[in-house]
Amino acid sequence: MSRHVIVRTARRVPEDVLKGLAEAGSSTVHEADGRRGAVGPELTPIQAGARVAGSAVTVSCHPGDNLMIHAAVEQVRPGDVVVVTTTSPSTDGMLGDLLATSLRARGAIGVVLDAGVRDVAELREMGFPVWARAVSTQGTVKASPGSVNVPIVVGGQVIRPGDAIVADDDGVVVVPHERAAEALDRARARTVAEDAKRDRLAAGELGLDMYGLRPLLEQLGVVYVDEQ
Amino acid sequence: MSRHVIVRTARRVPEDVLKGLAEAGSSTVHEADGRRGAVGPELTPIQAGARVAGSAVTVSCHPGDNLMIHAAVEQVRPGDVVVVTTTSPSTDGMLGDLLATSLRARGAIGVVLDAGVRDVAELREMGFPVWARAVSTQGTVKASPGSVNVPIVVGGQVIRPGDAIVADDDGVVVVPHERAAEALDRARARTVAEDAKRDRLAAGELGLDMYGLRPLLEQLGVVYVDEQ
Amino acid sequence: MSRHVIVRTARRVPEDVLKGLAEAGSSTVHEADGRRGAVGPELTPIQAGARVAGSAVTVSCHPGDNLMIHAAVEQVRPGDVVVVTTTSPSTDGMLGDLLATSLRARGAIGVVLDAGVRDVAELREMGFPVWARAVSTQGTVKASPGSVNVPIVVGGQVIRPGDAIVADDDGVVVVPHERAAEALDRARARTVAEDAKRDRLAAGELGLDMYGLRPLLEQLGVVYVDEQ
Amino acid sequence: MSRHVIVRTARRVPEDVLKGLAEAGSSTVHEADGRRGAVGPELTPIQAGARVAGSAVTVSCHPGDNLMIHAAVEQVRPGDVVVVTTTSPSTDGMLGDLLATSLRARGAIGVVLDAGVRDVAELREMGFPVWARAVSTQGTVKASPGSVNVPIVVGGQVIRPGDAIVADDDGVVVVPHERAAEALDRARARTVAEDAKRDRLAAGELGLDMYGLRPLLEQLGVVYVDEQ
Amino acid sequence: MSRHVIVRTARRVPEDVLKGLAEAGSSTVHEADGRRGAVGPELTPIQAGARVAGSAVTVSCHPGDNLMIHAAVEQVRPGDVVVVTTTSPSTDGMLGDLLATSLRARGAIGVVLDAGVRDVAELREMGFPVWARAVSTQGTVKASPGSVNVPIVVGGQVIRPGDAIVADDDGVVVVPHERAAEALDRARARTVAEDAKRDRLAAGELGLDMYGLRPLLEQLGVVYVDEQ
Amino acid sequence: MSRHVIVRTARRVPEDVLKGLAEAGSSTVHEADGRRGAVGPELTPIQAGARVAGSAVTVSCHPGDNLMIHAAVEQVRPGDVVVVTTTSPSTDGMLGDLLATSLRARGAIGVVLDAGVRDVAELREMGFPVWARAVSTQGTVKASPGSVNVPIVVGGQVIRPGDAIVADDDGVVVVPHERAAEALDRARARTVAEDAKRDRLAAGELGLDMYGLRPLLEQLGVVYVDEQ
Repeated sequence: MSRHVIVRTARRVPEDVLKGLAEAGSSTVHEADGRRGAVGPELTPIQAGARVAGSAVTVSCHPGDNLMIHAAVEQVRPGDVVVVTTTSPSTDGMLGDLLATSLRARGAIGVVLDAGVRDVAELREMGFPVWARAVSTQGTVKASPGSVNVPIVVGGQVIRPGDAIVADDDGVVVVPHERAAEALDRARARTVAEDAKRDRLAAGELGLDMYGLRPLLEQLGVVYVDEQ
Repeated sequence: MSRHVIVRTARRVPEDVLKGLAEAGSSTVHEADGRRGAVGPELTPIQAGARVAGSAVTVSCHPGDNLMIHAAVEQVRPGDVVVVTTTSPSTDGMLGDLLATSLRARGAIGVVLDAGVRDVAELREMGFPVWARAVSTQGTVKASPGSVNVPIVVGGQVIRPGDAIVADDDGVVVVPHERAAEALDRARARTVAEDAKRDRLAAGELGLDMYGLRPLLEQLGVVYVDEQ
Repeated sequence: MSRHVIVRTARRVPEDVLKGLAEAGSSTVHEADGRRGAVGPELTPIQAGARVAGSAVTVSCHPGDNLMIHAAVEQVRPGDVVVVTTTSPSTDGMLGDLLATSLRARGAIGVVLDAGVRDVAELREMGFPVWARAVSTQGTVKASPGSVNVPIVVGGQVIRPGDAIVADDDGVVVVPHERAAEALDRARARTVAEDAKRDRLAAGELGLDMYGLRPLLEQLGVVYVDEQ
Repeated sequence: MSRHVIVRTARRVPEDVLKGLAEAGSSTVHEADGRRGAVGPELTPIQAGARVAGSAVTVSCHPGDNLMIHAAVEQVRPGDVVVVTTTSPSTDGMLGDLLATSLRARGAIGVVLDAGVRDVAELREMGFPVWARAVSTQGTVKASPGSVNVPIVVGGQVIRPGDAIVADDDGVVVVPHERAAEALDRARARTVAEDAKRDRLAAGELGLDMYGLRPLLEQLGVVYVDEQ
Repeated sequence: MSRHVIVRTARRVPEDVLKGLAEAGSSTVHEADGRRGAVGPELTPIQAGARVAGSAVTVSCHPGDNLMIHAAVEQVRPGDVVVVTTTSPSTDGMLGDLLATSLRARGAIGVVLDAGVRDVAELREMGFPVWARAVSTQGTVKASPGSVNVPIVVGGQVIRPGDAIVADDDGVVVVPHERAAEALDRARARTVAEDAKRDRLAAGELGLDMYGLRPLLEQLGVVYVDEQ
Repeated sequence: MSRHVIVRTARRVPEDVLKGLAEAGSSTVHEADGRRGAVGPELTPIQAGARVAGSAVTVSCHPGDNLMIHAAVEQVRPGDVVVVTTTSPSTDGMLGDLLATSLRARGAIGVVLDAGVRDVAELREMGFPVWARAVSTQGTVKASPGSVNVPIVVGGQVIRPGDAIVADDDGVVVVPHERAAEALDRARARTVAEDAKRDRLAAGELGLDMYGLRPLLEQLGVVYVDEQ
């Protein structure tokens, strides 16, 4: 098999699951999925207030070369999130408003980019959300082979095509395709439980009491001292 | 004495001093206090436009563990700023909207966090200001001992319980408790002086003349050259 | 010749060229000038939405010392962008609202600062744009010699006095004085071409087809695979 | 299934394959395996001159906690390389000469550690090689759950239990278990080819000629210019 | 009181305590002192094999200026370790073989430098050990005020004049003056205990058994799985 | 003119000047040339004890692509130092023992590489010195155009073909071609002066006295305090 492949795949997370994951948000989904899937904080949103969940179309590029993002556009289905990495670290501006226009025309709802982005003023105006490692004017070429829809590593997490990507102001979380529905169930339960806790805390109850942490502090040898 | 303590202390900076420090802002207070107390620029605000000054409640946590922040909530008095560090570097999301709700219920007016924060959309909506090293979805446990209201080091500065914390869009500054009133006096004088300077500079006067720097340039051997 | 000089120079990019470069924006100008001049992404804007182009007044300072920025103010002409670096890396807050007031009074339209900035709330309120490596309360002294209007290196790029600086939400790009007019011509052509491409991509045409990339993929050995 | 597991597995790369991979060295094996598997350069050897290849025993720890390395010792077989990561970034000194003594007693031939190491003087004296992100005196606890022999991500690469780890002065490379024998074949062929090339280059032949690169330079538009 | 002071102090750790701390080494002392005092791993030795313990003479310099190290030389007594920081981050080469010669003539046994060092070949030849943030040719001036023998922060730790500094291949650890003797007692006990543990581990006993960790693993919900 | 050029140039620093600069060493030459030309400390030697000075052959490569180093080999003359950068940041292993063999066959005496190097064990055995940003197994392609013998920026310094490169354990310094002879004269004078100073300092004279710094301390407001 060739080293460089473009995989055509129908693996997608169901639309209603994605809708629920977006409502729950990245941090809640991360907790609900057993505190897994947190893409490192070095990828940050270029806009405030966006919150999306979609199936991953993955892209592996040579550094300084965005050819394979163009190849990936064709594999995008409505509701997808395109996730791009490079074979070695790069901050070059691999994606701008032209590529975003093309991706949006195919139905993509956002991009996660372990590299640089540019035309951020235009992207914000378009309302097309991007999470990236850097903002950079540095342009790229279209000359080197790579792959689409193979497993990649972004921010210390493995992301496979069709996995659920949840991204918002807190960053990016990946949930493996096969756990997405279960993670949603747990996220919903968690949201309900958190609402109840929030009410109690807002009323002045202490987490020490609500979570029953006082015995743990004592057991750990933490002692109270009064300063005279 | 146990290594891990929660100190109950009444040491606080007077409310009117804090009010004045907040009005002066972090950079002016830093200058007024002899150009000391600047917490490193790696801690940045997650919101724009907040400006607070409060007495520090300090927290030292194990990395990846926010148990001691829960313990710290009980030590918060109205107007306090909670300052959190970890015993070794961490970017995990140690504080979210639930903890912020609890802290606000006790009267805390903000958090300085030498680690990660999450639920930033909710925190911005709440208007609860946070200065942090990272935004991260990564969750933490509640399992390890630590301390509350002991001296800690954040961004290269020692912060002791009851020290004045001034934080705004420029970052975070600490003023030792015993110098807070004096720093305010100087900050006010400085603000008045800066207003006068600003008027002169706005009118076109040069800093070279206003500060009398031309002889210094000459003494330092800086020469003027006309390019032909 | 002295090591430390302040060069009085009339080298400026014509006003209409600068106006055109600002309209084109940093990323387009970078591409138009042969994908050159991208100042590294470690310099970021402290505000959103600014877009300026001006002739560079360059400043080289000792770390932790902003004396030479004061000296540079006198060399500013209306429409200039002041570009500051330090002789070794520094994040200190070398520029605040007073210096910005002074610079604006002389006609400067922005600052690029390979160091730290402070008073960012005031600078945003003034509408005076700054691109900097850090936001920092840390103050500086006025004690050490340096130079004005000598070639400096910022973000991996050489910037000479009178070169064109284009800066916006994507970052900072430098175009050598002697290539500025040509870069503008190419940037305008590029903008027209990009508008046409954008329309085609928005209509659903693929970049693979529009750019004729399919034969390249094949030649590079990239193969399509259908996942069963 | 529990989130935290210790997997007992017999998956190992055959001894003779490992022996060959060690002889080839990490960079050659990386090239031979299709330029894949390069663990990021942030992991560096604490000693000079070591060169090992072994089957991976993988460990995932909570930051600041080395409990699971102790659990992993029991899973080590002679010739194994233990590969450790933390669930979020950490530089704490998770491994010292005691753990190394224990690992060596079980037959481990080295450790790859995406965290910190200590007792490096003793480790060098023992001749027990370690590749780590940091050297740090900071101690850790034994209190938090984690996993052994599950897939982990280190330096941007997925490492699964039983994969081949090749490590030397150039750093660390992983070859998936199922490709190890094939990678060795290719590495041997590559070594032979490189020996021949080295002789030609040493004799003064140019790479431009030996690799036939002159037409490529011309096709890429690179032109020769004589400086007068 | 002036902001910039040179404090003449006789506070020193007794010679025999320092001798014992050096024998124990930095990591053992750190553990013995309650896992405290680990100076961050960003300070590394420029040589292999050095191991020193001395009383701290502390120095605070303006970045890019080593004037105060010269002032500190006079305060050095035989057996001291000079610890230098800058008021904001710097990697400039503040210390070379001339200053080291001067320090050695006064009896200093090493330098910890939260900045850059140069002349490292000469320093290695002299056998004068240095722990530093960087090696840098960049020279500094002698022009700015600072302080000697005031508390400073280095690598996240407070270091006061007369505190015990232990430094070796693992890095740097500080023990407060008043805890030095107690830390030595504990370090000696720890060394004895570790020798016994090392023997048992070398004989093949598992840490899981020696430390009694199996019940903890079970309690934490870690389960064993046999891969088929 | 084409964007990508290979310049054939005879510009070299005279052999005897280079010999003298090597003897003086990088830090002394940097001081002698007015404290200029210090390439940033992020480039470090992969070996200990090497000390070279040569004329620069400069190379600008696409990230992840070493084609242009092959083109540069042909431009090397005996005694040259090859200086390589990439058009955007990269740590890929662009140079190994094959390229080094080829460079040495042409007479190159070392390489400065603002990227990664590999085969470091072999390079050390060859005695071929390299200063690089990283050690990395990651391989590169030979596919993208670039330039040879054009001015480049490395570590914040402009390096032009034919400039003098001085590199040793302290790092890398560049001296412009036209200042090389003068810098040598000053370096020699400096070395003589330093030898005299070293003798005085070794004899116990203080820098405070030798450099006459006591009045400066007083003028700067530094005061002595006796701790009771």
